[in-house]
Amino acid sequence: MSLQFYYSPLSCSLATHIVLEHLGADYEAHRLNLRDNDQNKPEYLAINPKGRVPALITDRGILTETPALLLYLAQLYPAAKLAPLDDPFALAQMQSINSWFCSTVHVHHAHGARGRRWSDDLDAQKSMKAKVAQNMTDCATLIEREILRGPWVMGEQFTVADPYLFTMTSWMAGDGVDMSQFPKLSDHHKRMLEIPAVKKIAPLHGI
Amino acid sequence: MSLQFYYSPLSCSLATHIVLEHLGADYEAHRLNLRDNDQNKPEYLAINPKGRVPALITDRGILTETPALLLYLAQLYPAAKLAPLDDPFALAQMQSINSWFCSTVHVHHAHGARGRRWSDDLDAQKSMKAKVAQNMTDCATLIEREILRGPWVMGEQFTVADPYLFTMTSWMAGDGVDMSQFPKLSDHHKRMLEIPAVKKIAPLHGI
Repeated sequence: MSLQFYYSPLSCSLATHIVLEHLGADYEAHRLNLRDNDQNKPEYLAINPKGRVPALITDRGILTETPALLLYLAQLYPAAKLAPLDDPFALAQMQSINSWFCSTVHVHHAHGARGRRWSDDLDAQKSMKAKVAQNMTDCATLIEREILRGPWVMGEQFTVADPYLFTMTSWMAGDGVDMSQFPKLSDHHKRMLEIPAVKKIAPLHGI
Repeated sequence: MSLQFYYSPLSCSLATHIVLEHLGADYEAHRLNLRDNDQNKPEYLAINPKGRVPALITDRGILTETPALLLYLAQLYPAAKLAPLDDPFALAQMQSINSWFCSTVHVHHAHGARGRRWSDDLDAQKSMKAKVAQNMTDCATLIEREILRGPWVMGEQFTVADPYLFTMTSWMAGDGVDMSQFPKLSDHHKRMLEIPAVKKIAPLHGI
């Protein structure tokens, strides 16, 4: 059975989408339109009760959450060497980065368009949106100085952390980050755009 | 060299603290007082520039972020079988749970006491705090129905996801969740309190 992959454009599902394509995995992609609330329709909630993307149906069951999908795909295709699978310390460093992307960078970004998750008050939602540019700039500063080794996130080895970082940098300009302040991040983003899988998948996400 | 572990009471560092103790790891624990802003003092920022706990200094370098630390410790002590390391699909299921804890449950909880991360406006922070009980109740509902297999998170095997769930349930009552509605979660919390490592570590976190 082909892997069945559920995504929505320019969501964090972009990272897994790039990895599936880069690996040449046997998968079918299903697009959800968040504006039509596809993610909360009964047929999708039966796949992912959390009402979020990405989701991946495998022959053993359904998997969700980007860091878990990324590690799973790296393990499923070890020859592609998309994670330092033989070195628990290096793997923990990669997992630390991916975990911070999902728990902090993604969360800051989400306060722009999805403030209603955390407050029912429209003024509060506006107030959260007003802080997104600063929070995302702080994240970009930390990535530039401390995280991105160059040319890839983990150094010489291209890993699943790279499509995930590309997803973050794809959000940053729209979130009000002045990318010209971040030459390493900008270089990484451009380098990603040259990868064949990214050339194919990015347009499906409006990039 | 002993592992050097940095924590603050009742933060998400509780999960890693329990695992270190449960494994009988050679570690020294260092307590940060968030009220004294210890996490933003230069000596700690030199360890973790993100200014958060937990952090773990190993002989190869420093690691941060709970899901990464938990998987690292499970890999460092494979005989303890604290993760399904030989089954990438089961491991992805566990990583999916831990990833959702950090990106969603922890984030909802943080909107109670740490709303200033996402808004400078005091009324907006109050408004976020007012939504915490509902959001945490929604998370508890999902864990009870969909995630916790019982008796442990992953079923018969006790894994690093269990101390992490225990951390979430330790927050829930204080966040306004009526735990009597969640018998499986309550049973898990009680069962955790019977584990020797938890008996020793929980009091250091005010539990």
